[in-house]
Formats: sequence, structure tokens, C-alpha cells
Amino acid sequence: MDVQPKLQRWLCLVMYILFGIAVQISGGPAEDLIDRLPGQPKVNFKQYAGYITVDEHAGRALFYYFAEAEDDSDSKPVALWLNGGPGCSSVGGGAFTELGPFYPRDDGHGLRKNLQSWNKVSNLLFVESPAGVGWSYSNTTSDYTCGDESTARNMLVFLSKWFKRFPEYASRDLFLTGESYAGHYIPQLANKLLNYNKVAKRYKFNLKGISIGNPLLSLNVDTAASYEFLWSHGLISDESNIAILKSCKFDKRIKNVDVIDISKECDDILKQVEQEIGDYVNEYDVILDVCPPSLIEQELRLRKKVSHMSLGVDVCMTSERQFYFNLPNVQKALHANRTNLPYDWSMCSNVLNYSGYDEGIDILPVLKDIIQQGIRVWIFSGDQDSVVPLMGSRTNVRNLANDLKMSVKVPYRAWYHEGQVAGWTTVYGDLLTFATVRGASHMVPYSQPARALHLFRTFLSGKDLPDQQ
Amino acid sequence: MDVQPKLQRWLCLVMYILFGIAVQISGGPAEDLIDRLPGQPKVNFKQYAGYITVDEHAGRALFYYFAEAEDDSDSKPVALWLNGGPGCSSVGGGAFTELGPFYPRDDGHGLRKNLQSWNKVSNLLFVESPAGVGWSYSNTTSDYTCGDESTARNMLVFLSKWFKRFPEYASRDLFLTGESYAGHYIPQLANKLLNYNKVAKRYKFNLKGISIGNPLLSLNVDTAASYEFLWSHGLISDESNIAILKSCKFDKRIKNVDVIDISKECDDILKQVEQEIGDYVNEYDVILDVCPPSLIEQELRLRKKVSHMSLGVDVCMTSERQFYFNLPNVQKALHANRTNLPYDWSMCSNVLNYSGYDEGIDILPVLKDIIQQGIRVWIFSGDQDSVVPLMGSRTNVRNLANDLKMSVKVPYRAWYHEGQVAGWTTVYGDLLTFATVRGASHMVPYSQPARALHLFRTFLSGKDLPDQQ
Repeated sequence: MDVQPKLQRWLCLVMYILFGIAVQISGGPAEDLIDRLPGQPKVNFKQYAGYITVDEHAGRALFYYFAEAEDDSDSKPVALWLNGGPGCSSVGGGAFTELGPFYPRDDGHGLRKNLQSWNKVSNLLFVESPAGVGWSYSNTTSDYTCGDESTARNMLVFLSKWFKRFPEYASRDLFLTGESYAGHYIPQLANKLLNYNKVAKRYKFNLKGISIGNPLLSLNVDTAASYEFLWSHGLISDESNIAILKSCKFDKRIKNVDVIDISKECDDILKQVEQEIGDYVNEYDVILDVCPPSLIEQELRLRKKVSHMSLGVDVCMTSERQFYFNLPNVQKALHANRTNLPYDWSMCSNVLNYSGYDEGIDILPVLKDIIQQGIRVWIFSGDQDSVVPLMGSRTNVRNLANDLKMSVKVPYRAWYHEGQVAGWTTVYGDLLTFATVRGASHMVPYSQPARALHLFRTFLSGKDLPDQQ
Repeated sequence: MDVQPKLQRWLCLVMYILFGIAVQISGGPAEDLIDRLPGQPKVNFKQYAGYITVDEHAGRALFYYFAEAEDDSDSKPVALWLNGGPGCSSVGGGAFTELGPFYPRDDGHGLRKNLQSWNKVSNLLFVESPAGVGWSYSNTTSDYTCGDESTARNMLVFLSKWFKRFPEYASRDLFLTGESYAGHYIPQLANKLLNYNKVAKRYKFNLKGISIGNPLLSLNVDTAASYEFLWSHGLISDESNIAILKSCKFDKRIKNVDVIDISKECDDILKQVEQEIGDYVNEYDVILDVCPPSLIEQELRLRKKVSHMSLGVDVCMTSERQFYFNLPNVQKALHANRTNLPYDWSMCSNVLNYSGYDEGIDILPVLKDIIQQGIRVWIFSGDQDSVVPLMGSRTNVRNLANDLKMSVKVPYRAWYHEGQVAGWTTVYGDLLTFATVRGASHMVPYSQPARALHLFRTFLSGKDLPDQQ
């Protein structure tokens, strides 16, 4: 993905913006500083939230939440986190239910500390991207029809302007991270930053590495892997698996960039498969319980058998977050929803019309380009996720390594945390790492917070995951 | 498997023994009644343990433990439970760490109640089989060289004599259940009982059904499935999986009944695979932590990070049991070890020389025969087990159903317990059920006690697993 000529005017704009960074006074902007979030426990780090306008003319603005590191924020890197979807909220997802400093309280009225927050090791930036997601918006409705290219372009502008607003972080080591469809967002954004750096005269983004969890990278490999996972984890029958292998040519589908038109036969099987899986299993974590639907909850409560906890995880956290984020005083404290959007905040957008075709873009060449420029790439995978499962990601990484003619530096082996196997890992060359996280969902830091933090800390350090505890 | 002529004398002996049952006085034998086990909480049901001599001449005797049902023992069926191995203890495994009424306390000096014991719904009989396992023994050392046929034959004699000793249970509904290599033991024993019944003049075993968890049924299918499981659950690399598929012809190996001689190439890969998996993962439950080795435990204890609990399961229970069973007063209370064996009690036998060739016996024809005689067959599978994984069992059941020309009665779907998906199930015809247990290990009742009890209760009832909660 080279910089296309039509983007030259964007790069000029970005360079113009960044030119000013060096002469800015350091410190975050007072107007974005969060005083205190409703029901928030006391903490010693600063938080900021607000909007960055990425297109004045269209009235297009992206909402961000920034949590400084718990200690020594001035010596720690900046990590951007993006959730996927496409169309899901990084502030709702990453920041408040996965790796940020707070989780919603179970009454939905306040917050509790996340003891494994990634702001122990990094300053954390979360962005609702593209416009139309969460509290990000555009005054030009047609902006909500978008895709990978415009999303990456807007994020480049966002980061340029954000670093201008936070000049003390502008030259800090920068890491890009995220999950799921951020398998598209993050590499494409990294590519934009690196291309920008190539033509930049003064300011350059100090990009050091990218790390993506359960990422969509290659739709044909990832889709086939998804059904293989469902079968090998017992969610679908032998009969269906055999029928899928016979009738569903995912490869062919992707090559034609025709993501809707699959054969009638295949379509029928995939519908039957949904019946087999049923409605009460979390496909993002096949062994985690689900938050009980209210009717069942009522009945179970009578029998004193209801629980919101499964394997130590609060499985109702998404409802609690939904409630908390729609409290007016929460939105006020976050400087969010400044335009009074005509809909409630929701985790994934109902207004976005994101290009379905872009799902089919092969991300491996983008990753190849990034690695060839000396940037560290980690692909990690919660091993309980059937949606973008580990087998697809592992195969994608192997294919990438083969393409790059990288040899195995760390042969596939277990990695450890607190005396237990925390997952498996393999490293190709000096820059490409694959790692699973044992017992983790699609949302790795949500279901395995301690292992996820350890993985992220190791990623930042540039070391390999520990061999033994 | 028909009754072979050379076994006629055994059947005569058995019939002779059973002839007396009807005229016996009811009630368990006073000499086998357990007064109270050391450190045992108070309970209202009776327990018995002791020896049944299955061959007077050889001095061959099998040790059993029998726990009556918690309530209404006189109206509940009898279930025999056998652990596998071959060579592992049903009393140590099934009775005291899986589905029996007690678990060892974490100090190893006493017992605690298993709140999900299967004696809520059945009278439970556990037998150390064959001689050489646990406290079962023979005074004729050559008896320790044995295999499937002699094991089943001895168990037939055992059951005949046991029912004579416990006459009030002799006509009760009988269910055979177990796990792992009991995939060989149970069907072969059922076959023996049914063949006995065919020629019996008076007493007949009242066999109603068999149920086996993570059973070895067809070594070629089960072995291939094991490596597929390891791969799809992230424990081994893509590279190894590809190499295994290329070099390891498990099918060929089994057909030749040549279980040792695999190709050098395949052997090398399987060794490498062990490296990849590492030493600190429980292959019988790939997401459960392991009991920390003492050196690591010491270090972790200093950092206050040691835990014996993983996902609510005491992962050190096997050590606690080992300690408890070797206490002299425990052995005395159990009427065990009456010959002062020259070795400690251990979960799996070190003296047995069990035929490796018998692993290769195809059990599907035996199951077919049993079903054709109207006996209910359930195959269940803890879905976290890589040793005899669900995919192999599921395929075996499908192959069996196809062979029997049974149609699908219950299409593959989730089953429920306490408002959550407890696994998936499918039923063929009226008698053949397959079910997974979600989040369960090879030892299903150990890691998912509530789901396991619900499954067993449903099996006994003759119903299908619940569709919704």
C-alpha cells in the first residue's frame, strides 16, 4: 500500500499541523481534563477526553479517551487501542471493559478499578473510529458510508492533531494495538504513519510496534478457521462440518470479493449451524457463561442459582457499561455527546454503513510492508474465540513468515505467567510474534486480564514471552 | 462377541453362585460396613468396602467401595463405575475425586462432602479392576499379565458374587458407567452380562444402560482426533500438525495391530510435539491450571501468588488423595490392603502388565451388539480433554449410528443446566446418545460436577438432555 497521489493534500495538511508541535507548551489541554467520573474510585493519574475535529468542513469529529500511566507517565510510551466491528467503540470496549483503568460497577452507577489495567505500563489512548461510532460523529451524513481507506486517513489526521494537543507525548515511543476488525484498522494506520514519515520534513511518528488480538487478516483463512473451531470445540455436528467442507468454498468467495453470494447449499448449512450452536452461547468465548436473559434470570433468582460471574469474569459487564455510558452526568464528565446525538450510546454503531467489501482485503501484504520497515508485529489470540479463532491467525502468521522468508527464532512453546501456562508462542525472525492466551476470549484483556497485561508488558519491552516461571 | 465355548465353565460357576441369591437375607454384609472414614463429615447413608475373591485357587481378589444413595437407597438403581488406564483405580478416581460422596480435604487428613455426588440419584459401586490395580491383588503374580478378555471375565464373576453378598440389590436396575479406557471395560462387561443372561435359567442381570465418558472406542479415530484437538486448541504448531498429517498414518498402525512400530519420521514429530506442549499443562484438561510443582510453589508462596484452585476446581486433589489413601487408619477403615501389599497405594498401577494390543480392539461392534439388545448407550465427552477428545467420540458415535442405520432423533443442539449451556447433544434412534460437557476435563465429574450429575440423572431417567432452562 503506497501513498496514493490523491492523498498528497492530506499529508500536506498533516505536516502543517505537526510543524507546530515542537514549539507548543507541554501538558494536556485543560478543557479535555476529566475532573472525576461519576462513582469513580480515587486514582493518581490524569484522564482526558474530548473531540478532535478531523474535517472542519464536513463537521467530522472523533471522540477520544486518554488515560495517563499510573506512575511515571512521562517516561512511558503511548499506546493507541482500537476496537473493531467495524463500527464498535474503543472507549466502551477497550477502555471501560477490557484494558483501561476502570470497569463499570455491577449496579451500573459507578466504576471500580481494573487491577490489571494496561496503564500500569503505558499511557493509553482510545478513539471512537470512524465517525458514527460511539460518540464520534459527522455533520455530513454521507460520511457514515465509509471503509478502510477513509478510516485510516481520518485516524492519521486525528493522531496528527492529537499529538499537537498533547505535545509532551509527540516524540514518545508509539505503539498501535487493538483487536478483531482492528486487524484491518491497525496495519492500515501503521502503513499511513510510515508513509507519512517517509515524506515528512520535521516531525515523524515514533512508531515502534503493533500488536493485534484475534485480528481479521485474511477473510478466507479466518472464515474457514471459524467453522473448524466450532466443530473442534463441540458446538456443531460432524454432519454439518462435513457438509461445510463440501459445500462452502470460502476461498472462492473471497477471491471474487463477493462476500454475500454464497451457494444456496452452503447458506442452508450455515443457517442450520446457527441452530446447533443455539442462542445462549457466547461465540466470542465458547466456555464463558452468558449474562442471563432477564426472564431466565428471574426464575433462577427464585431458585438462588443466578450468577453474573463465570470463571471469575463478570459476564454482565456489557449491560452495566451500556447503562453507565447513557447516564447524562457520565457523558458530561467525559465531555462526550456535545452535539446531543439523536440516539443512545451503543457499543456498536447503528448508523454506520461500512463497506462490506473491505472485509475481503488481504492484510498480510500490509503487515509484510510494516515488518520490512523494521516495525515489531505481534499477533495474539484468545484461544476460546470462535469468531476469529487462533488457528486462522496462526496460519496467517506462518504464511506471512514464509512470504518474508523469516526463519523460526522461537519454536512453538508454552509461555508462562504466575507459574502456569498462559498460552503458546512462536517467533519468526526478530520482529514477528504469534501468541495465544489460554482461557481468553475474543476480548483477551476482558477474560484474562493478568495474562493480557503480562503479554502487553512483554510486547512493549521488545523481549520474548517468558519460557518458564 | 459371542460367548466362547471355553468360557462355559465360568458361566456355570456364575450361575451356581447366583442361584443362591433369591434365598439370601437382605442387607449389606456387616463385615464390609464402614464404620466411619477418618476425618469424614457425618452422613445418613451407609458405605461398604472390602474384597470379593474372584478366583480362590489363584488367590485373586478385587477391592470394591459401595456408597448407598443419600436417600431412598432401596428404590434407586445400582450404578457401577470403572476408571480406565488400563490400570487405574476406580476407588481413587471415581469414588474419591470425581462422583463419589467425598473429596479429600486439602490437608489430605480428612474428607469433605461432594455436593454433586452421584449417590443423590443412585447407589454407587466402584471396583479396582483388574487385580493389580489399587488394593486389588492376586497371589499368583502371572495374573498381573492380563488384558480386556480376562478383565471382563473377572468382573462378571465379581458382579455375580457381589450381588450375592448384597442380595437386596440383585434385581435392581443396573447401569454400567465409567471413563477413558472404561470405553473398553464397560461395553465388554455389558456384553458378558448379556451373554450370561441369554443362558441363565433363573437370575439375570437387570442391565438397563451404559454410559461412558471420553472413552477409548476406536484407536485410529481417537488418536488422530487427539492431535487435531491439540492443534485446534493451540497446544501445537501449524508446522507440526501438517507434518503429523503427512507422516503419521494412525489408521495403518491400528489395522496392523502394531501399536509400537510407527515410522521414524512420525515418531520424531510426536516427540517434538511433546516439547511444544511443555510439561506444565494438563493434557486431560487443557485450560485447567496444574498443581504447582513444589519448587515453583515455594517461590510463588513467597510472592503470595500460589493457588490450588483453577476455575473453581482443586487442581491438587490427586496429591491430597494419594496422601489420604496411604494413611494406615484410612486403609483400616476401608478394610483395604488386607494382604499388606509391598507397595504404596497409587492411582495407576505399577505392577500391572496390561496387553498393549488390546488398545487396538474396535469397540464399535460391541456397542452395536449391546444396542441391538435394547440397552441404552450414552457416550459423553468433557470438551477440554485432548487425550480422548470429543471429536473422536462424536465421529465414533456417528459411525456407529450409520452402521446401525439409526436416524437422528435429536439433531445436534445445546443442552442446558442452571440457565447456561452445559454442552451439546445429539440422539440417534431411541437408544444412542452423544453429549459433550462444556468446560469439562477427561474426568468430567471432577471438573464440572453439577453438569455431570445433571447428565447422569438424565441418563438414568431415560429422557433426553434438556432443551432449554
